[in-house]
Amino acid sequence: MSVDWLELEKVATNWVYEAGHKIKKTLAGPIDIESKSNPDDLVTEVDRAIEAFFYEKIQEAFPEHYFLGEEGISDEEPSLDGTVWIIDPIDGTMNFIHQKQNFAISVAIYHNKVGMIGLIYDVMRDELFHAHRGKGAFLNGAELPPVKERPLHESVIGLNARWVVEETNPYRNPLKALVRDVRSIRSYGSAALEMAYVASDRLDGYLSVQLSPWDYAAGMIILNEVGCVASNFQGDPLSLTDSGTLFASKPHLHKEIISIYIGEEY
Amino acid sequence: MSVDWLELEKVATNWVYEAGHKIKKTLAGPIDIESKSNPDDLVTEVDRAIEAFFYEKIQEAFPEHYFLGEEGISDEEPSLDGTVWIIDPIDGTMNFIHQKQNFAISVAIYHNKVGMIGLIYDVMRDELFHAHRGKGAFLNGAELPPVKERPLHESVIGLNARWVVEETNPYRNPLKALVRDVRSIRSYGSAALEMAYVASDRLDGYLSVQLSPWDYAAGMIILNEVGCVASNFQGDPLSLTDSGTLFASKPHLHKEIISIYIGEEY
Repeated sequence: MSVDWLELEKVATNWVYEAGHKIKKTLAGPIDIESKSNPDDLVTEVDRAIEAFFYEKIQEAFPEHYFLGEEGISDEEPSLDGTVWIIDPIDGTMNFIHQKQNFAISVAIYHNKVGMIGLIYDVMRDELFHAHRGKGAFLNGAELPPVKERPLHESVIGLNARWVVEETNPYRNPLKALVRDVRSIRSYGSAALEMAYVASDRLDGYLSVQLSPWDYAAGMIILNEVGCVASNFQGDPLSLTDSGTLFASKPHLHKEIISIYIGEEY
Repeated sequence: MSVDWLELEKVATNWVYEAGHKIKKTLAGPIDIESKSNPDDLVTEVDRAIEAFFYEKIQEAFPEHYFLGEEGISDEEPSLDGTVWIIDPIDGTMNFIHQKQNFAISVAIYHNKVGMIGLIYDVMRDELFHAHRGKGAFLNGAELPPVKERPLHESVIGLNARWVVEETNPYRNPLKALVRDVRSIRSYGSAALEMAYVASDRLDGYLSVQLSPWDYAAGMIILNEVGCVASNFQGDPLSLTDSGTLFASKPHLHKEIISIYIGEEY
C-alpha cells in the first residue's frame, strides 16, 4: 500500500499542535502540578493521555500503521517493516514538572526502517522543528540552512554534568576530556530539543550515555536533513528497538569527537 | 538629594526595552554575525554600544549617579555611596554568538550599597524579570510568588559541567558530590538568566565559581524579593567590587548546600 507522505506530514503536524494545545490547557488549568502529593503523578497522567491521544488518532486514520510509544502503549508485535510511528509524548519530563516549559512532543514516522517524517514541538515556546526526508528541515515553517562547522575548541556542546561525575558511567573519562577541550557546555534537559538545537545551529553537538528510541527517533530525521549525524558513541547507526548512547553533531565534529574521545567501546 | 525610585524604575525599564530593541535590530540586520572573521568582534561591538547607550542616558538624566559597566566604561572613581548603576550590556555573550538568543541585559541600581532596582531582560524571548526593593519581583509584570522549597535530592541546579572537570578549580570535588546528590543539572550559559530562573522557580539553585559584580548585581535584588539568597560559596555577602564565587538558591537549600558541600574555604 502506497503512502501519501505529504498528507501524512500534514496530519501528523495537526495532531502535534492539537496535543500541544491539550498540554497547555492542562498546565494553565485548575490542576496545580505542585499540589499533587507527588508531581510525578501529573506528568505520568499527561504523558499517558497524550500518548493515548496519538494512538487513537493513528488507529482510526491509519489502522495498518504500527505504534511505539514511550509510555508503553504499543502494538503487540511492533514491526519495523511497514509504517511505524515512534512517539515520546513529553520529552523532558523533569522540565515539565519543575519548569512547566522546556519539554517537547517528539513524533517520528518510519517506513521500512527509514525515517520519513520527524516533528519536535517545544509546546510552551511554540517552536516546531520538523523534517520530511529529502525535503529539508524547518523551524516554524522556515527552512533550516545546512549547518556550519566550527573547530572543536570553539564548539558548544550539550551534555549533562551528571555523565562526567557518575562513577558507574564507563565514558566518564573521555567525556571529562571533551568537556575540558570544547568551548563550553550547555544542558537543557530534553534530548529531543537538544537534537533540534544541533540541527538549528544553537549547539554544535549533543551527547547522552543512555537514551531510548522514542527520545531520538524524530531528532535523527531532522538532523539528517541539515547534514548532521546522529549515531551511538562508536559511530554506528542508532537502534530503533534498543536503548544506548547517543551522539548527534555536525559531521566533521562527529568524526573528530568519536576518533579522539568516545569511539572506543566500553 | 532624594531619589524618586518609582520614576527611576520606569526610566530604567524603558531604557532596557530600548536597548533590547537595538540588539534585536542588529541581529536581524545585514551584519551577519558569522561572516565576521571573528564573531567575538561583533559581540564586543554590540556590548560596547549598549553599555555606551546606558552611560550616555544616565549621564544626561542623572549626572550625579555613578556607573559601573562590564565593558569598562565607568566613572573615574566609582563610589558605592550614592546611587550606582551596575550594568552588563550582554550577559551570556557565548550564547549571543552561537545561538543569537539566551542572553540578557542586566541592569541594577544600588543606593548606598543597597540594591534598589534590578532588571534582567531576556531580549529574544521578551522576558523581563524585574524587582523593586520591598515591592516584589515580577516577570513581564506578573508578580513572582515566594519560592517553594524542595528537598536537595529533588532539586534541579544550574551549574556548568566545566566546574566539575577543571583540575584547577578548588571546589571541584564538593561540586562533583553535589551533582551526584541532586536530582538533575541544567546549564544555560547566562548567570543573570540562571539567577532569574531561580527567582522564578525554574531552577532550585545556581552556582558559579567565578563571576563579577555586573553578572549578579541585578539578580541579587530580584532573588531577595522572592525570599531567595545569593552569596559566595561561604555564605558571605557578595562583593560589588570584586569577582568571586556565586551561589544563589532557595533559603533552606542554601544553608544545606553550604554546610554539606561548598562552605569550606579553599
